[in-house]
Amino acid sequence: MIGQSEQTALKGETGTGLQNDLFLRAVKGEPVSRPPVWMMRQAGRYLPEYQVLRAKYDFFTRVQTPELAAEITIQPIDRLAVDAAILFSDILVIPQAMGLTVEMNEGKGPLLPDTISNMSDVLKLEVEAAHVKLQYVYDAIKVTRERLLGRVPLIGFAGAPWTIFCYMVEGKGSKTFDKAKAFCYQDPDAAHALLQSITLATAAYLKAQVKAGVNAIQIFDSWGSVWDKPDYASFSLQYLKQLVQHLNGEIPVILFAKGVWHSLPELQATGAAALGVDWANTATEARRLTGGTITLQGNYDPIKLLQPVEKIRTDVRDMIREFGKDRYIVNLGHGIVPQIPVDHAQAFVDAVKSYKE
Amino acid sequence: MIGQSEQTALKGETGTGLQNDLFLRAVKGEPVSRPPVWMMRQAGRYLPEYQVLRAKYDFFTRVQTPELAAEITIQPIDRLAVDAAILFSDILVIPQAMGLTVEMNEGKGPLLPDTISNMSDVLKLEVEAAHVKLQYVYDAIKVTRERLLGRVPLIGFAGAPWTIFCYMVEGKGSKTFDKAKAFCYQDPDAAHALLQSITLATAAYLKAQVKAGVNAIQIFDSWGSVWDKPDYASFSLQYLKQLVQHLNGEIPVILFAKGVWHSLPELQATGAAALGVDWANTATEARRLTGGTITLQGNYDPIKLLQPVEKIRTDVRDMIREFGKDRYIVNLGHGIVPQIPVDHAQAFVDAVKSYKE
Repeated sequence: MIGQSEQTALKGETGTGLQNDLFLRAVKGEPVSRPPVWMMRQAGRYLPEYQVLRAKYDFFTRVQTPELAAEITIQPIDRLAVDAAILFSDILVIPQAMGLTVEMNEGKGPLLPDTISNMSDVLKLEVEAAHVKLQYVYDAIKVTRERLLGRVPLIGFAGAPWTIFCYMVEGKGSKTFDKAKAFCYQDPDAAHALLQSITLATAAYLKAQVKAGVNAIQIFDSWGSVWDKPDYASFSLQYLKQLVQHLNGEIPVILFAKGVWHSLPELQATGAAALGVDWANTATEARRLTGGTITLQGNYDPIKLLQPVEKIRTDVRDMIREFGKDRYIVNLGHGIVPQIPVDHAQAFVDAVKSYKE
Repeated sequence: MIGQSEQTALKGETGTGLQNDLFLRAVKGEPVSRPPVWMMRQAGRYLPEYQVLRAKYDFFTRVQTPELAAEITIQPIDRLAVDAAILFSDILVIPQAMGLTVEMNEGKGPLLPDTISNMSDVLKLEVEAAHVKLQYVYDAIKVTRERLLGRVPLIGFAGAPWTIFCYMVEGKGSKTFDKAKAFCYQDPDAAHALLQSITLATAAYLKAQVKAGVNAIQIFDSWGSVWDKPDYASFSLQYLKQLVQHLNGEIPVILFAKGVWHSLPELQATGAAALGVDWANTATEARRLTGGTITLQGNYDPIKLLQPVEKIRTDVRDMIREFGKDRYIVNLGHGIVPQIPVDHAQAFVDAVKSYKE
């Protein structure tokens, strides 16, 4: 738990009304006594209290019922005392709001039976009104903020346009997203029209999340790693840049493009407040690529949370030393996985909280 | 087709008895008039003549019948006139020879029903005698050499110990091989024992391939990218180094570790003759990481072969200019995929052959 004196100090410094704003200070690059910590997918299947709700309500009921989404969002705050909450939701609410059917088969991943394969399909999608259909998300944000009582900041999120495109074209997960890439190479006009539509719908969605009360936004580009650098610039980066520009000045944006080490400098140049990194980068290399001037977030391999807790503690200390205490948010390099014991996740969080230089 | 005068010059220079030894000269770093070209998985499902054999014989019949394997190996030489042949086989013959059942369900990927999960499982595996069971591979090499009549060199291959480990522990393909990694973190002694056993069986297998007549060896580390750099060194690189040392002096070895950009300098330090690279590396970056002193092979995204042939030709010329004519083998950055039109693959090969500085 955070100490009373630290809480007071934080409140006084930033005027956010938050009891613990370490996360926001780190995002903005302000000096901190220790780095903040949260975990991607921290609200999820490794928590027994989540399993209780999962057994009672199907996936979209959990996502679309503000009280349930808020409860799930807050579970890891209550349990692990992480320094930020991230809204329980899914990146595929955007294709859903744009008019596509999304089936979520637990344990098997998502299925979108009506895939996009040409310009005619693209033109049928809802763009301007898509964000209006996601009122349940904005309501969940409001309920979460009320229940959080200012304990920690709340992060809103969306998928990167390219990653959403992958699911809309391929219809399901893939190792390589060859079909989505083939679409880009064979019909670039339709591909860019689709990416632009997703970008506009996502921008409006994220602005509405900000209005509803999130304190920061994270954009997940889970499938950027399938491109080479020039094609990543063309089919992903330019749309990420648009999203950051839509939001800039309003709220700090974290871009997490998994596996896209080659474009870290270009991701930084979008104007994002912080960048997520995975474990393919050493901290030293990530700092080198970004000139040491931007906040980095990551990069512990979630599978390493299966190691003995003493090893997790040592790893965390080493990781903070290598990234540095400032301009750094401790996190995983990918979402936590269901098989992680809760006390191992707790050890990860606690090791950050007890960090001393 | 290679010109008569070029053929004579090649024969005279290296004494390999090959009509076209551009590939071997490039592997060894000798200057060439143009870079050689071949394609990973060039013997396969995009070729109509392969489909004819695929309809008649199941996968392991094709692999285990020397005449069939030789015929399939030579199909892309006849059709596309690439500068090297690679034996038609599969990396999973090693787990099979070590005693595990391997089912190959076409279109669905491999299945190994008896996975390895502890030291007791490891100790039951055949190690010393595994390579003896693969006589059909050595026979296929002999038949292929006879039928090739010295037109081009023949490449033998095996999977990297880590990649074989992934299939032995996980039992099937995976995006992240979390189960295989978890085994390494939770029982490192058994994991290293298994990796060492695979390495020894593979070393004997590759030596027997050399004895049977291959001109070079390529080792495929398809799943190295799931590790961070220190763990890649521990669970993959050290075993690749052992393999190179087992073969060194006898034959040039190409290491292709997909997605493992972070360890290119360490892969080079194994003593490998050449390194394969994928498209996540620009040529410039790959040259920077390896100091410009080793032959590189790659790195065209196979999905780009769906582009118009004129674009493929331009891309190939740009790629050769960026990698440089020497110490370079033109290839894809991953295996060719079934949906590529043959004339697009042909355009790729022809663009290399008509390259002029």
